[in-house]
Parts: sequence; C-alpha cells; structure tokens
Amino acid sequence: MTNNIHEECGVFGIYSDRTANVAGTVYLGLYALQHRGQEACGIAVCDDGVFSSKKGEGLVSEVFDENTIKSLGEGNIAVGHVRYSTTGGGGLNNIQPLTIRHIKGNLALAHNGNLVNAEELRRGFELSGAIFHSTSDTEAIAYEIVSERLKSSSTEEAVSKIMSKLKGAYSCVLMTATKLIAFRDPNGFRPLVMGKRNDGAYIIASESGAIKAAGGELVRDIMPGEIAVIDKSGVRSIRTNTCGKGSLCVFEYIYFARPDSVIDGASVHHARLRAGQYLAKDSAAAADVVIGVPDSGLDAAMGYAKESGIPYGIGFVKNKYIGRSFILPEQHSREDAVNIKLSVI
Amino acid sequence: MTNNIHEECGVFGIYSDRTANVAGTVYLGLYALQHRGQEACGIAVCDDGVFSSKKGEGLVSEVFDENTIKSLGEGNIAVGHVRYSTTGGGGLNNIQPLTIRHIKGNLALAHNGNLVNAEELRRGFELSGAIFHSTSDTEAIAYEIVSERLKSSSTEEAVSKIMSKLKGAYSCVLMTATKLIAFRDPNGFRPLVMGKRNDGAYIIASESGAIKAAGGELVRDIMPGEIAVIDKSGVRSIRTNTCGKGSLCVFEYIYFARPDSVIDGASVHHARLRAGQYLAKDSAAAADVVIGVPDSGLDAAMGYAKESGIPYGIGFVKNKYIGRSFILPEQHSREDAVNIKLSVI
Amino acid sequence: MTNNIHEECGVFGIYSDRTANVAGTVYLGLYALQHRGQEACGIAVCDDGVFSSKKGEGLVSEVFDENTIKSLGEGNIAVGHVRYSTTGGGGLNNIQPLTIRHIKGNLALAHNGNLVNAEELRRGFELSGAIFHSTSDTEAIAYEIVSERLKSSSTEEAVSKIMSKLKGAYSCVLMTATKLIAFRDPNGFRPLVMGKRNDGAYIIASESGAIKAAGGELVRDIMPGEIAVIDKSGVRSIRTNTCGKGSLCVFEYIYFARPDSVIDGASVHHARLRAGQYLAKDSAAAADVVIGVPDSGLDAAMGYAKESGIPYGIGFVKNKYIGRSFILPEQHSREDAVNIKLSVI
Amino acid sequence: MTNNIHEECGVFGIYSDRTANVAGTVYLGLYALQHRGQEACGIAVCDDGVFSSKKGEGLVSEVFDENTIKSLGEGNIAVGHVRYSTTGGGGLNNIQPLTIRHIKGNLALAHNGNLVNAEELRRGFELSGAIFHSTSDTEAIAYEIVSERLKSSSTEEAVSKIMSKLKGAYSCVLMTATKLIAFRDPNGFRPLVMGKRNDGAYIIASESGAIKAAGGELVRDIMPGEIAVIDKSGVRSIRTNTCGKGSLCVFEYIYFARPDSVIDGASVHHARLRAGQYLAKDSAAAADVVIGVPDSGLDAAMGYAKESGIPYGIGFVKNKYIGRSFILPEQHSREDAVNIKLSVI
Repeated sequence: MTNNIHEECGVFGIYSDRTANVAGTVYLGLYALQHRGQEACGIAVCDDGVFSSKKGEGLVSEVFDENTIKSLGEGNIAVGHVRYSTTGGGGLNNIQPLTIRHIKGNLALAHNGNLVNAEELRRGFELSGAIFHSTSDTEAIAYEIVSERLKSSSTEEAVSKIMSKLKGAYSCVLMTATKLIAFRDPNGFRPLVMGKRNDGAYIIASESGAIKAAGGELVRDIMPGEIAVIDKSGVRSIRTNTCGKGSLCVFEYIYFARPDSVIDGASVHHARLRAGQYLAKDSAAAADVVIGVPDSGLDAAMGYAKESGIPYGIGFVKNKYIGRSFILPEQHSREDAVNIKLSVI
Repeated sequence: MTNNIHEECGVFGIYSDRTANVAGTVYLGLYALQHRGQEACGIAVCDDGVFSSKKGEGLVSEVFDENTIKSLGEGNIAVGHVRYSTTGGGGLNNIQPLTIRHIKGNLALAHNGNLVNAEELRRGFELSGAIFHSTSDTEAIAYEIVSERLKSSSTEEAVSKIMSKLKGAYSCVLMTATKLIAFRDPNGFRPLVMGKRNDGAYIIASESGAIKAAGGELVRDIMPGEIAVIDKSGVRSIRTNTCGKGSLCVFEYIYFARPDSVIDGASVHHARLRAGQYLAKDSAAAADVVIGVPDSGLDAAMGYAKESGIPYGIGFVKNKYIGRSFILPEQHSREDAVNIKLSVI
Repeated sequence: MTNNIHEECGVFGIYSDRTANVAGTVYLGLYALQHRGQEACGIAVCDDGVFSSKKGEGLVSEVFDENTIKSLGEGNIAVGHVRYSTTGGGGLNNIQPLTIRHIKGNLALAHNGNLVNAEELRRGFELSGAIFHSTSDTEAIAYEIVSERLKSSSTEEAVSKIMSKLKGAYSCVLMTATKLIAFRDPNGFRPLVMGKRNDGAYIIASESGAIKAAGGELVRDIMPGEIAVIDKSGVRSIRTNTCGKGSLCVFEYIYFARPDSVIDGASVHHARLRAGQYLAKDSAAAADVVIGVPDSGLDAAMGYAKESGIPYGIGFVKNKYIGRSFILPEQHSREDAVNIKLSVI
Repeated sequence: MTNNIHEECGVFGIYSDRTANVAGTVYLGLYALQHRGQEACGIAVCDDGVFSSKKGEGLVSEVFDENTIKSLGEGNIAVGHVRYSTTGGGGLNNIQPLTIRHIKGNLALAHNGNLVNAEELRRGFELSGAIFHSTSDTEAIAYEIVSERLKSSSTEEAVSKIMSKLKGAYSCVLMTATKLIAFRDPNGFRPLVMGKRNDGAYIIASESGAIKAAGGELVRDIMPGEIAVIDKSGVRSIRTNTCGKGSLCVFEYIYFARPDSVIDGASVHHARLRAGQYLAKDSAAAADVVIGVPDSGLDAAMGYAKESGIPYGIGFVKNKYIGRSFILPEQHSREDAVNIKLSVI
C-alpha cells in the first residue's frame, strides 16, 4: 500500500484534564519515536483554545531546547510529529503538525502514512478554489475534515464521514480546541496505541515505547477503522463501518518499530525472534555461528540461533554517532562508508 | 488607513528573458529594502514553472548565505519580501512570499500593506470550507485571486476583478509560472516602482533604491490602481476602474523610506528637506543651531537650517551595531538604552 | 608606527567595590566600541580571584547573549576586547582578553595597538623554553609582565619596569585577582580614557563613548606613559620615566573613533569639523554644494561648508545593514558592491 | 592511577609521504573514536611546516563539516583529539590538540590520560616565569618537551628524556613540522596502536577501530614505554629505560573501548565474553535468562550465557538519539530519565 518504505513517521498526542507542561511530555514522546523520522519535527499546544506551535528541520534535540519548550507555554492538549523526509517542493510547509484555522476554529493534525488517492482528493478541492501550501497528503486530509465539518455537528462526526474517502495508510492524531482525536485507517497499516498516565492524562502514540517514555502505561491499540475521542468527558470510541481486518505493514515488525514496542497486541521483539525461528525451520543452514546485522536484525538472529541450536554471536559494531550530518571526505569510496557505520569485530 | 505604523514591509520581483541567478538579484534588492523590515524574509524562484523557496526569521544576511542562494537554483522569475514583524500566532507560516498550489498552477505572492477587511474576506472563504495556515492578510488576497482565477482567462484578469474587494493598503508582487505581476491599491498607500536592467530584465520593488542596488534604473512608479504584467511579450498595464487619486502614506516620506528613493515622482530626500523648510516658515525658532535626530530627521533639520539661516549641526551619533539582538543587562534602565543607541556629541 | 591601519581594536575594563553584573557592563562598553573591531570579541570576569571568560568570532551581539553573560557570573572586576581581524595562524587563540595562569596568580590582558619589536621579544622568551599559543603581540606583553613579576613586589611595578622594552603602540587593560591596571605607551598612539559611575565603579575604555554607554562619566585621559592602578584603595597613578610627548595616531581623529568621543581632551567631532575648515582655507574650491562620504567624512564636509560658505548637502546614503556577512552574488562587479553599500541620492 | 573514570579521551594521527586530505582522514578516525569523548574535538594539520587547526565544543559532526575540513587544507601530517569533558576553568583553551610555537618550530600535541604530578610540573615552570593558558595536563607535557628540546638534538630525544618525569597515564600523538611521534607511558594505562594504509600512510590511534575506519590495517600496539617516530625515513622505535610492564586500565576492556578494537593484542569483544564466562564459573546463578545492559554489558552477558548454559536474551533497548543535548522537562524525575534512555522490552 505504501509505495515508499521510507515514509514512516511518528505521531504523539496528549490530553490532560489540567493545564500542564504538555509540550514537555510531547518532547519526551517524540524523543522515543525519533527512530521513525529524523529529518523534521514539530509540536503544537492548545491552551484553552489558543494554539502555539514550533516546527523545524532536524532531530528533536536540534529543533527543541528548554527555551523553545517553554515558549510553547502550558496547555491541556498537545500533538507532535517526527518526519522521515522533507524532500519535495514544500520545505517548511510540509513539516507537521499541520496547524490551520477554519470557520469552526483551529485544528492541528499529525499524520503517519501515505494516501494513494491524495492527488485526486487535492484536485477535487482545487477545482472549487482551494489553495494548498504543502505537497503533503496531510493537507488533503485536513481539507476533507474541514469541508465535512461544515455539515456535521462535531469534528469526530466529520472524521467518521470522510474516512471512507481516504485510500491508503493513515494513523492520525487531531487536536481541536477541546478534544484530542485519534483515527486509524481500516486496514491498520501503521500502528497507533493509547496509553494513560497516573495523573489521568491520556496519550496517543505511534508506538508503546513512547507512552512509557512519557511516563504512562499502554492501555490498548487504536483498532483499524477506529476513531477515539478524548475530551473532558473521558474517552469514547467510534467504529467506522468501513472497518476492515488489520493489515499492519510488515516492515513495522521487521524494521521500523522499536523492539520494546507492542503493536496490535504483539511484542515487536518477540515477533522478530519468531521470524528468526521460522526462518531456521524453513531454511536450515550448516553454520558455526548466527550473527545479526544491527540493530533490527539482532532479534531475528537470536531466534534463528535458538531454533537451530547454532550458537548466537556478535559480529558487527554499529557506530552510534553516525547521524544525519556525517560527511564522507571525497577520496573515500562507498565501501569505506560502510566500514565507518558498521565494523566487523 | 494602516492602524499600525510598524506594518511597513518591502517587496521585490524580477522577470528575466533568460535563465539567470535571479535569487541573487532578489537578495541584493532585499538587502537594499532591509530598513523596511528586519524580522523575517524570504525568496521564491520560478524555473520553468517549478517553484523553489526559502524563508526564515532574521535579517537577509542571517537567513541567506551563498549556499542557500545557490540551493534556490537559477530561474527567470523571482520574488522576495522583508517583513517588519512576525508576532502573532502564525510564526513561520506568516513569512512571505506566500507560495501556494492551486488548480491553475503555482503562485507566489509578496504583499506590503494592511487590509481593513481581511477578517471579513477570510470569513467568507472559511464559510465555504477554506482553511487558513497563517494570520496574514496575504492569504486572504491569495484566496481571492485563486477563487476568481477559476472564472477568468488569466491571472491578471482575476487580479483586476478582485481589487475592488480589497479595502486598504496593498502593493504586491505576484509570480506565476510565466509572469511577474505587480499591483497597487487605488489609493497608492504604499510605494511600488518598476525598473529595468541593461540585460532587459524588469524589476519591481517597494523603493527605487532597491532597483539601483540590483543594477537597474528606475523606469516609473506603478500607479495607484494599476496592474502591471511582465512576461515574454514585455510589459503591459491594466488600469482598474477602481482607480482613485494617490494617497501615499505620509510616513513613507517622513520615516519609512530610504532618502535616496524616488516615490511617486518625488525624491524622499527632497521631500524631507522641504518639510524642514516649511516647518521653519511655520514655526520660526530663536536658536543657535539646528540638530536632527538620526537617521530620518537629518534631512528635515538641514531644510530647517537652510530656510531659517540658523547653522546646521550634528548633535547625535547613532550606534550602527544595535540590531535585533541587542540585550540590555537587567540592572539598566530604559534611559540607559537610549544612551547606547543614540549618544550626544 | 602601526604598519596596518586595520589594526585598531577596542579595550574596556571595570572595577567595582561591590560584586555586580560587571560582565553586563563590559557588554555595553564593547557594544559602544564595536566600530573599532567587528571580527571577534571576549569578556573575562574576576569574582574574588576566580576568572571566567568567554570569547568568540563575530560581533558582540553574536558572541554574547543573555545566557552567556549570565554564565560569566557576577564579579567585581572585568575586562573586554573587540578585535578587528582574526586572520593569521592563531585562530581562537588570538582572541582577547588573553587569560593566563602564572606563579603569582591569574592575569587577563586586553591590548589595542601593535608592537614593532614583538618578534624580537618572543624570540627572547622562546630561547629560554617559553611556548606561545598565539601569534598576537599580546602574548609577548604578558610574558614580559609575568617574567618581571617574579622579581617585583606588585604587578604594577612589573608593568612599570617592562614598558621601556615595548616598542610601538599599546593601550592596555590588565586584570589581576584584585586590581584593574591600565597602561598606555609613552607616545599615546592609541586612545585610553578613565571614567566613573555614580555607584563608585571605575571604568577604563578606548573611547569616552563607551564610558557613557556603560552609564559613567568621562574623568580624564590615561596619559601617554601612564600606568593607572585601580583597587580597593582607589585610583593611583604611576608616570613612567619613559614618558614621551603624545603622538596619537591621526587616524583616530580621521577615521577610527566615534564622533562623540573625546580623545586626549579634544572632541573627535570638533577635530573633524576643524579639519574641514582648514581644508577650506588651504584649498578653496568653486562648488555648488559640499558633500561628505558617510560616516566619518560628514563632519569634515560640514566644516568645509561652514568655512567656505558653500552650502552643505547630503549626497550619499549608506546601507546600515551591510555587515560582515554580506555576500555579493557572483555575476556582479566590484562597482555594484559600492552601489549596494553607498547609494547616491 | 586515573582518579576519574570519565577522563578517557581519543587521539589520532596520520603521516603520509604525499600531500593529501589528511584532515579528512583524521575526521574519519575521530568519528570512530567518538565514544571516547563527546564534549569537544579538534584537528591540526601540517602542510610543509605550516600548521592549521580547528577546535570546538561538541561532537565531531557538530564541530566539523565539509567547509571546515576543506579550510584546514591539504598536508602530509595531521593529528586529532576527542575529549570527554571541557569542564574546568579553561574553556576553549583546554580543547586539544594543543598547538604551540617555540624556538625550534611548531608543535601540536594530543593526549589521552591523566598525570598525577601535573600541578607539581606546572609549578616548576611557573617559578621560572612560564605562563599557562589552560588547566590541562597537556600543557605541562608540552612545556617539558620544549624545555628539554632546547638541550636535545631532536624532538624524540627530548621526549625520551622527559618521560621519566611524567607520573601517570599518557598515550600521546605529537606532530612537528616533519614528524609524527607517538609515545605511551611505561605502564600502558591507555591504549595506543599503529596501523598502515595501502598508500603507505601510517596511522596512530587510541583504538584499532579508528584505523579500520580510516581505511588502514592494524599493525601493532605502541608498547608501554615506547616512543614511535614516523617521518620520511619510515618508522623507528625508542624503548625508554623507564619501561615497565603493561598495566592497561581495566575499564578499557570493561567500558571505554569499542568491542571491535584489539588492545595490547586482545580483542575487546573476546575479553568481555571471557569476563562473562569467568563470572559464570565464579558465581553460578539459578536463572531463566541472561540479559546484558547495553551497550558494553552485552558481550559479558553472552559469555555468561555460553558458560552457564542459561539462554541469552535481550531485555533492554537503548535510545540511540539521546545525546549531549537531551533536556528533561522539569516535572519529571531521575527515574523517568532512565525510562527514556533505556527501556525494558
């Protein structure tokens, strides 16, 4: 469904009954989701209906510091996003959360996934005079919601009506002046979970690891096709009739997600272990040692070792400091680049 | 008409028959317009219909350097903007030029002025489902143009139809895939001039000083109510029937503009000199010396001195290095701040 | 004496009886001396014998902000420096104040001027095993002081003994754990003044404008050949027997200094006015108007106008925003660069 | 011997027969040594006797980019350093390599280790008038070398004479105008290895992983008490008579070094595995699974598992993006900080 395996992103949202440093909580959550997107990030805060936001290119630690978190102020709802890639014509306009004003108030939307009919949706709106600031699918989703909102009694009703129009993958958090709304496509291509903190605050995140990082506990998955609405009345859920069976993107288990996350009820770590075990059953190999390629291949190697009885070993070390800004001095080849990132013991 | 004397900005545009470093030319032009806005700036370039843009908070010298100018690439049309203030909820979204995509293509719009009916215009669009990313008047103007464009045969026709709806001050440069369009409100509240370079390129700028800085010569003012269209056929002009008599904001001559600029046919330097002369006739004073407060008061003081026969002298020195980032250590008073910015000889 | 007219710098020092935000005061003083050096700057603070310092390349507003000023902490003595050029092999090591540790404690030294025998002095020390971290003359002066200090009862005694060895221009402020010492070469090539604030704090600065900016009043010049020592006993002065007659570098009056400064008892503004008057007497010209080139030529033009009776006019506007970081896009010539920096009215 | 386990650092040096991009090679080497120090780094290049250097606070990727590497120019010798901590009074002056000028030419020195008698050595020099710019031990070593150099026929002779005076840990690379010299204390507290590249260039580094990253192969350890001199005649070795038996700091194997490094002939990975095996023999435990704490504890856990027959498992995930700049929003406790850095599967 997703035509580009690089299009993973991470979303995070919090709803608190009390005014609090919700920007700080989103910061912790985005830090824990950083592996899902290193190119850009943003946080939007709602304080009694007034929205503040800050976005930028770079890691969470580069875009945010104590001062920027403080400058976002306190609030009771906040959403955030980490993005894999900002390439394309949109530049800063493509960084999420997308914050907009419409006739019924403000909205902030953060989206993980890809629509396959985004261009078609955009064209429909453009024909009626709409203008687009970005090249992202997210703006098309926002237009759908706002357009339907004019004819609906609530934002969640609008979301429920437009989900059948969106073809593809979307796991979203949506902030209005009074609500945090999470919704996930009927196939559940991308993960989305709900958690709760001791102080009663609710958290929505792409992975359960981010809930833990923000001091909460995993409650459950947002189900494929579900809309979860969190406001001062608590949590309620809308199951759309477009609801299909889950088809989580297999790369979440193989590559994208943190090993400590639990997605759709299954531990990523155990899924990887089992994948290695199945591989050992399917494709037995005569070998002295089983070695995984860091980081995501380690668990599967361990499963293979366990099933096959061949000893598990460590053969590669990954340089922890290779980041976005690594430059390879000109005279060195591509092979050398691998030497630097991954070295043999 | 403008309810805030701080709302001056600067706009700049270039149209060249050949592909060239138009971003570099806009950079020179914005440098010369820096006095009209120090808080944020941006440049958008059109290369055969493909738009690239870069915007940021800070001075032209802070937002742009050789690499960013290069990264914008070559093109044949470009527009730029310097902005006085980025305060308000919009943050980065409020920085111009506003670059959007609509059904007929891309647009980039840079606007100097204030509409008095912007909220009313925005509300009209919001009622039909439009979403706004910024709090600036510029987005309302863009919506008006795009909305009318659906029913018009050209962008300039759309502009000519919507000018009567815009109440207030607007001197704009608008870039499409093939044209540079300049338009100025019927009252001509804010200046806008056209220039030409030896290589045949046309320039539009808020002040003639920017045309000179970009290597061109002043041709003429864009007239109040005029729409000037520059494309491969050359320049043509549309005079809207809403055309009123010019009412240039007097602060342009008094405070905003560069003394070397010629606005609506009158030199700013000479206007300030004459203002001093008139003051001397109206309000003769018994004094030993006439001293102006730098920078904009110097010319008037010289005019007063000339008319009154009282010697002209220099009494204040302005610190050239006080910029946006000046911090006053806490224990000092407001009076001290003046000491640092302006000192008595 | 100075073989490079670009080697002006600015020095500043404060001594307070009470612990205070002396770093903030130096910041204000350096801001007012910024015209003497835009390439690098630094501040060193003494708090009860403990030295803290911060230096960097760039304008005062670039190197320092509220946090860095705070991080320097409070103290009762502080010195600072602005430097014209950091070219040469030393890089960061060449930025002043030079802070060192020696057997009798810590020293921080800031120096304006050039020695003609610096290489000779350095060679002498190197022969006995000394190591040099920088290529600046300042380190040679520090070695002389420290070497003599071993045989002297006080730092000021050491300074008085080594001044005859230093050939060339030096106006210095020197901070020890308990004293602020100012010394100026016997020819007085570079200016150096003393001021006082209402709260009893003493200030030493390259120009009187910096004393005013720091909230003080000019008391007097540091005389050519004088060593002024400020500590808890107050101010005392040592006149070295090497004292010559003053030979202030004429470029101070012509070009370097602020017009509102008073150097060696003479106002820079009046000196420039008088220079214009003498020129008018010497070289009368038949002209319609007298125009000065900003900034330092304006006063002389006014003097010429006054003496000759030819009207004074303004013909050029200088772009206030051209700073260190101005880049000229490649296709433009040197002539264009002048267009941008200085434009004709 | 080292009183602070945080005082690991990394050193790197290259000697090439031909002028080459040696700064780029040092950059690669420092990247591979980044785990030994994340607070500051620097590179110094020698091009035919002319030294250029660049240092700064931060990771290698923050201090250096393509432009700074280019600005260092080509050369045939270069040294670099990564530093754990820049705390202390010296600030920028404490960042290595230390580059100095003395009577016999230029020196650049990079040092890993701690002297226990540094204060004593410094005091000796200060008594004869020496001035210190930093608080680092490195400056004391430089003074010793320079002082002895005055009485020696070569730099290596000077090094050999002063090694008995230095008490404590030192693994150093020293660059002169024509030589790269490596020397290691007689106890060999800190590692130091030599490698060679296909093009004939020699490399000295704290760990063999850096040699591989720079495209070379490990040749051998620099022995405890050895001085290795590399110049146009090739490599020669001086064994000082102070040579003791090796006493490598055990934390190198336990914690500091990369698992893929080979120190004093032993693989760090295997040493950690064996440590786990010994632990299993010494302290058998009844357990279901053996889990290591990332990163350095993983190998030992695997050894324990192997020896004990208890299955090895993965129980913790470490956040790869927690760097120097991680800020913990105020309302969270220390326990939460661990949640974010290390999470349980």
